[in-house]
Amino acid sequence: MGIRVAVVGASGYAGGELLRLIAGHPHLELAVATGFAQAGATIGSVHPHVRSFRDVVLAKTEAAAVGDADLVFLALPHGESAAIAAQLPETMKVVDLGADFRLRDPAAWSKYYPGAHAGTWTYGLPELPGQRDRIASATRVASTGCYAVTVVLALAPLIAAGVADPDDVVVVAASGTSGAGRSAKQHLLASEVMGSLSPYKVGAHQHVPEIKQASGARTLSMTPVLAPMPRGILATVTAKPLADADPRAVLQEAYSGEPFVQVLPEGQWPHTASTFGSNAAHLQATTDVDSGRIVVVSAIDNLGKGAAAQAVQNANLMLGLPETAGLAVDGIAP
Amino acid sequence: MGIRVAVVGASGYAGGELLRLIAGHPHLELAVATGFAQAGATIGSVHPHVRSFRDVVLAKTEAAAVGDADLVFLALPHGESAAIAAQLPETMKVVDLGADFRLRDPAAWSKYYPGAHAGTWTYGLPELPGQRDRIASATRVASTGCYAVTVVLALAPLIAAGVADPDDVVVVAASGTSGAGRSAKQHLLASEVMGSLSPYKVGAHQHVPEIKQASGARTLSMTPVLAPMPRGILATVTAKPLADADPRAVLQEAYSGEPFVQVLPEGQWPHTASTFGSNAAHLQATTDVDSGRIVVVSAIDNLGKGAAAQAVQNANLMLGLPETAGLAVDGIAP
Amino acid sequence: MGIRVAVVGASGYAGGELLRLIAGHPHLELAVATGFAQAGATIGSVHPHVRSFRDVVLAKTEAAAVGDADLVFLALPHGESAAIAAQLPETMKVVDLGADFRLRDPAAWSKYYPGAHAGTWTYGLPELPGQRDRIASATRVASTGCYAVTVVLALAPLIAAGVADPDDVVVVAASGTSGAGRSAKQHLLASEVMGSLSPYKVGAHQHVPEIKQASGARTLSMTPVLAPMPRGILATVTAKPLADADPRAVLQEAYSGEPFVQVLPEGQWPHTASTFGSNAAHLQATTDVDSGRIVVVSAIDNLGKGAAAQAVQNANLMLGLPETAGLAVDGIAP
Amino acid sequence: MGIRVAVVGASGYAGGELLRLIAGHPHLELAVATGFAQAGATIGSVHPHVRSFRDVVLAKTEAAAVGDADLVFLALPHGESAAIAAQLPETMKVVDLGADFRLRDPAAWSKYYPGAHAGTWTYGLPELPGQRDRIASATRVASTGCYAVTVVLALAPLIAAGVADPDDVVVVAASGTSGAGRSAKQHLLASEVMGSLSPYKVGAHQHVPEIKQASGARTLSMTPVLAPMPRGILATVTAKPLADADPRAVLQEAYSGEPFVQVLPEGQWPHTASTFGSNAAHLQATTDVDSGRIVVVSAIDNLGKGAAAQAVQNANLMLGLPETAGLAVDGIAP
Repeated sequence: MGIRVAVVGASGYAGGELLRLIAGHPHLELAVATGFAQAGATIGSVHPHVRSFRDVVLAKTEAAAVGDADLVFLALPHGESAAIAAQLPETMKVVDLGADFRLRDPAAWSKYYPGAHAGTWTYGLPELPGQRDRIASATRVASTGCYAVTVVLALAPLIAAGVADPDDVVVVAASGTSGAGRSAKQHLLASEVMGSLSPYKVGAHQHVPEIKQASGARTLSMTPVLAPMPRGILATVTAKPLADADPRAVLQEAYSGEPFVQVLPEGQWPHTASTFGSNAAHLQATTDVDSGRIVVVSAIDNLGKGAAAQAVQNANLMLGLPETAGLAVDGIAP
Repeated sequence: MGIRVAVVGASGYAGGELLRLIAGHPHLELAVATGFAQAGATIGSVHPHVRSFRDVVLAKTEAAAVGDADLVFLALPHGESAAIAAQLPETMKVVDLGADFRLRDPAAWSKYYPGAHAGTWTYGLPELPGQRDRIASATRVASTGCYAVTVVLALAPLIAAGVADPDDVVVVAASGTSGAGRSAKQHLLASEVMGSLSPYKVGAHQHVPEIKQASGARTLSMTPVLAPMPRGILATVTAKPLADADPRAVLQEAYSGEPFVQVLPEGQWPHTASTFGSNAAHLQATTDVDSGRIVVVSAIDNLGKGAAAQAVQNANLMLGLPETAGLAVDGIAP
Repeated sequence: MGIRVAVVGASGYAGGELLRLIAGHPHLELAVATGFAQAGATIGSVHPHVRSFRDVVLAKTEAAAVGDADLVFLALPHGESAAIAAQLPETMKVVDLGADFRLRDPAAWSKYYPGAHAGTWTYGLPELPGQRDRIASATRVASTGCYAVTVVLALAPLIAAGVADPDDVVVVAASGTSGAGRSAKQHLLASEVMGSLSPYKVGAHQHVPEIKQASGARTLSMTPVLAPMPRGILATVTAKPLADADPRAVLQEAYSGEPFVQVLPEGQWPHTASTFGSNAAHLQATTDVDSGRIVVVSAIDNLGKGAAAQAVQNANLMLGLPETAGLAVDGIAP
Repeated sequence: MGIRVAVVGASGYAGGELLRLIAGHPHLELAVATGFAQAGATIGSVHPHVRSFRDVVLAKTEAAAVGDADLVFLALPHGESAAIAAQLPETMKVVDLGADFRLRDPAAWSKYYPGAHAGTWTYGLPELPGQRDRIASATRVASTGCYAVTVVLALAPLIAAGVADPDDVVVVAASGTSGAGRSAKQHLLASEVMGSLSPYKVGAHQHVPEIKQASGARTLSMTPVLAPMPRGILATVTAKPLADADPRAVLQEAYSGEPFVQVLPEGQWPHTASTFGSNAAHLQATTDVDSGRIVVVSAIDNLGKGAAAQAVQNANLMLGLPETAGLAVDGIAP
C-alpha cells in the first residue's frame, strides 16, 4: 500500500499537475483532493486529462479534509496556505506550493504581499548547497516559486563562486500562461495572448526577494513577460563578471551530480519545449562579446520544476523515497 | 536486464517519442537507435528533450545496425520500411510505424502510394475485435496510421453494430504539425502555420483505404486540415443512422474494458490537449438535431496513440508484457 | 466632413474591429462609441491597438447616446439589439451585427435562442443574388453571422444551380477564439486553448437556421470547433452532387465580379491566415474521389467578413459609398 | 498615375508585406516585383494573401528588372543588396531593407558579417533627431534592422538626454518567427517553435553595432529570443540612471509630435499584438524599485516598423509624399 498524500487546492493548474504526477508515482497514493468553488465536482470534469482519477470527487478545501494523510500538498493562491497549515498536526508533513512561507525577512514579505508574514519554512530547492538534507529532515517545506527556481539555478553558483557580481543582476524572464493561474481574466484570454508578448509588473515583481534570498543577489532588475504558450519559463540572467572564469564550467561543476539540472553541451541553448512535462531545468552560459557580461539562460516547465514536480521532488526527500521517483527527466517535444 | 529494442529511424518526431517512451519504460532497454542524415549525431543534439539518452550516438539506418535486438521499431518515411524489413531475420519481432504493410488490397496501395505493394502484416490496433490476440502472437505488426486510428476508433463499433450507415461517412480531421514530419518545408514553417488553418490533400487522402479496411466504411469523404498546434488530432466523424440506437452507448459498450480508449461522460466533448503525451483516445457521440446524422468526435495525440505510444502498446503485447507498461493514460495539460 | 457613424457596443472584439475600420475609412467619421461595463473608459485603454481614437471616451450604451449619427452599428451580445433598435428613429440607418433580426422564421429563432423573436431585417450578405440592391435601399440591415457567411458563400451557388443536394449537407467549421467573444471564461483562457482543438455545441448549433435560410440547405449537420488561433474560420462543406458539374466552375461564375469573394486557382486551398484583417473570403472546391461528394473549403476572418468588415460593406451600400471603401481585399500574413 | 516602385526580392516575408502596403498605398504603384527561386511564379501563388496582385508574375532578381521605376525597395538577404545597388543609376531612389549599408564602421561590419563592407547610406530612422530631413533629401537610404529600431527608439532619447548610462545597457528582445525569414529550416518549423521560447546568437548578435551606432550606447549586452508567434518584437531595455529624471517623461517629450512612436499612458505596458500590421512603436518606461535601473519596454511589428512599413515611411519622405501615406498607426488585434 502506498504512502497517502492529500492535494489541497486541486482545481488549479499546479493542482492538476500534482494529480497527474501522483497517478503515475510508484509510491504515492491519492488520499484526498480538495477544491473551493469546484468542491463536489469529479476530477474528470475539472481536469479532463487526468483520467486516472476521473471519478474521484473533490472534497471541500479545509484542514479537516486531509484526515490522516502522510503528506499534504498545499496548492492554494498566495496567502491562503497559512490558515490551513496552522490547523494541521505539527508532525504532519506539508509541502506548500505557495509563497507564504518562503521568505525569511518579514519586511520583504510586506513590501510585495498583503497580510502579515506567516513564517518561514525550509526552502524547497534541493539543488542548493546543503538544502537536500534540510528538506529530508523537515516536516514543513516551502517549495520554490516558478520564476525563482529558474533564476536561482542560473545564478546562485556563480555568485557563490565569486564569479558573478551580486550587485548588478539583470533578469528578463518570460513565462507561459499557466503560471498566471486558471481564474478567468480578460487579459489571459486566448484571443489576447496568442500572437502577443506582454510584460507585466515591470519594475516591481513579488518574486524579487525570494530570488535575492536564495541566489545571493543584492540588487536585481527583474522583468517578467507573458508569452503565448501554455507552459515554460525562459530566463535570461546577466551579471557583471568578478573573476576571469568560464561561467559554464562553474555551473557544470555545481550540477554535475544532479539528475534534474543539466548544463547543456557548449553551443546548445535551452528551449522551454525540451523541459515540457518534466522536472528538468536546462542551463547554458556564455560571456557577451560586447559588454563582457555573463549571460546565463535557464529553461524549465513552470508547472514542473517550477511547481508540481518540484513539490513532488521535495516530498520524495521528506518521505525517504528515491528523489527521482515518479518524476521525468525527459521533456515531451515537439 | 531489460528487453532490448531498436529504433530504426530515430531522428524524426515519432522516433523521438519512441525514445522518450523507451527511456521511461520499466521493461524495455534501448539497444540501438539509427538515423539517416543524422547518423553519428548524439540523441542529445537531435532530440534535446530526451536527456536520458543524451550521449547515445545514432547508428546508420541499415538492417545490420539492429544486431540481435529483441524487437525493432521501424519509424521510417512511408515506403522505406519494406527494404529494411526484408533483411531482418524472420523470427525477429518488428513493429512498423509506416504505411508499407497496413493494407490488404494491393490496388488500394497503388492508388495512393508510389512503388509496389510490400505485403500485409497484422494490423496493429488492439482495440478492434479479436485483434489483441492476433497482435500478441505476431512477429510482424503494422501499427496504425494517425488519422486512421482516430477515425476507426470512432466508427468501427457503430458500423459493426449496424447503427451507422457505411455508405455515407463524412470525416473532417485536423492534425497538429508533428504529423507532417520533421523535414524542413516552407509550408510547415511556424510563420506559415501559426494563426492559420489549412486543408490539404482535399478529395484524395492516402489514409482513406486504411480507414475503410479497418472500420468497415464503404464510401468515405475525408478532409484533413493542418492546425496551429504541435500535436493532436481531432476527428469529426458523421454517418447516417441505420437504426434507432444511441451511438454513445454503442461506443461505451465497445470500449468498456479498454484502458486507453475512453468514452467521456455525456455532454463532455474531447479536447486534443487532454490526450497530449499519452496513449489515450477520447470519444464522444451524439445525434445531430437537424440532420439526424450520428456525430462522433475523437481526439488523440498523433505521436501517442497515433504513432509511438500505439507502437509500444503493440510491442508490449508481442513481448508478453502488460499492455499498459510504460504508457500514460493521463494526458498533460494545460 | 465625413458621414458620422456610431458604434454601440464598442468594447468587444467586433466593436474594436469596427473602430479600427472606421479610423481608416475615407468617408466615415466616428460620432460616438459606447460600452456597458467599460463606459467612461478611453478607447486607448479598452483597445490598445486603436491608437487613432485613444482619447475618445466610451459613452454608456443606450439609444440616446447615438444622437443624430447617420448610421449606427450595433455590436451587442445576441438578444440585446432589439431593445436599443426599437428606440432609434425609424429613418436612422442601422446595421446590426447580432443575431436578433437575421431569421425570418420565429420558430427557428425560438429553437435556438432565449426570448421572443424580434423581427426580420434585410439580410446583409451582398453577394447573394439580388441582395446588394436590397441592402442599398434598406434602413435596417442584419449583418451575417460569422459561421453563416463562411458556409453560405460556399454552398448557396451550388444549391441554386442544382449541383449540390440540399438534403445531406455536412459542415465542420473551425473558428479562432475571437468568435467566442471577450468575456472572461475559463474555457477560453489561453492555457486551455493553445495546443488544443475542441468541438462545442455539437449536434445543435444556433447558426444552423441562418445557414439553411440563406443557403437553401434543407438538412444540415454542422459541427463547430474552437481552434488555437485568435481569428479566422475555416469551413469544410460537403454535399452530395445532383448533377455532373464542376463545383469550382459554379462558384467561379457566381463570384466572378465580386471584389471580396475569391475562388482560388485550381489546386490552391484556402488558409485562414490569408484573409486576416481583411473582408476577403477564399474558396476552393473539388469532388472527393472515394465518395463522390462535393467538398468546398471556405476561409474568412471571423472579425472581418464574419463581422465588422462585412458590416462596413453593408454600411457602404446603405450610404451610397463605394462598396469597397475602407475595406481590405488583401489579408495580412504571415 | 502613381509613382512607380519596384520590389526586388518580393518572395520573402518583408517583400510580401511591401507588396501589401503598396497595394493599399494611395500614391504608389507597383512597377515590378522580382524573385530568385520564385521568378516566373505569380504573386498569388507566392503570397496568397496579396490578392490585389494575384496575377502579377515575379521577374528575375537582377538590376535590369527594375527598369525606370521611380524608387526601388531592396528586400534581399543580408549581403546581397550591394551588388544590385551598384548597377542602378545613381539618381534612382533606393531603400534597402538589408544590413549592407547601415553601418558607418567597416570594422563593425567585418566583426559580424561575411564579405567586404559595401558602404554607408543615410540611416533610415526618421524619428532620430535631424534624420527626417536627411532621409528626405537622400537618394539612398538604409532602412533600420528590426531589433535595432525596437531598441534604438527606447534608448536613444535617454542617452541623448544624459539620463541613461551608455556603458551598461542590457537588452533582452524576443521576436516572432517571420524575423527569421522564409527559408525552410528545421528549427523554424511550427512543430519546433510552437509552445517554446528559444534564445539564439547569445553573446554575439549582429545587430549590436547598429544599435550602438544609432542609440549612442557604448557597451551593450543583447540577447535575442525566438518566440512562438508569427510577428512582433518586444524589447526590454535596461540601463543605469545617470540623473534623477523620469525616463517616461524624456521619451514622451522626444516623441510628442511623432505619428508612429507612442509613449503609452502611465501604467499601460506595450503588447506586440497592438502593433500588428502597423507602422506603430509602443513604448513605456519606469524605474525598477530594487535595482534603480531604468527599464524601457518597446514593441513593434517586425515586418511593420521593423521592415516593410518603415521602408515605406522612408520612401514617402524621399518622394515628398505625406510621411504617413499608406501606413497604419492602428494595429490589428486580437
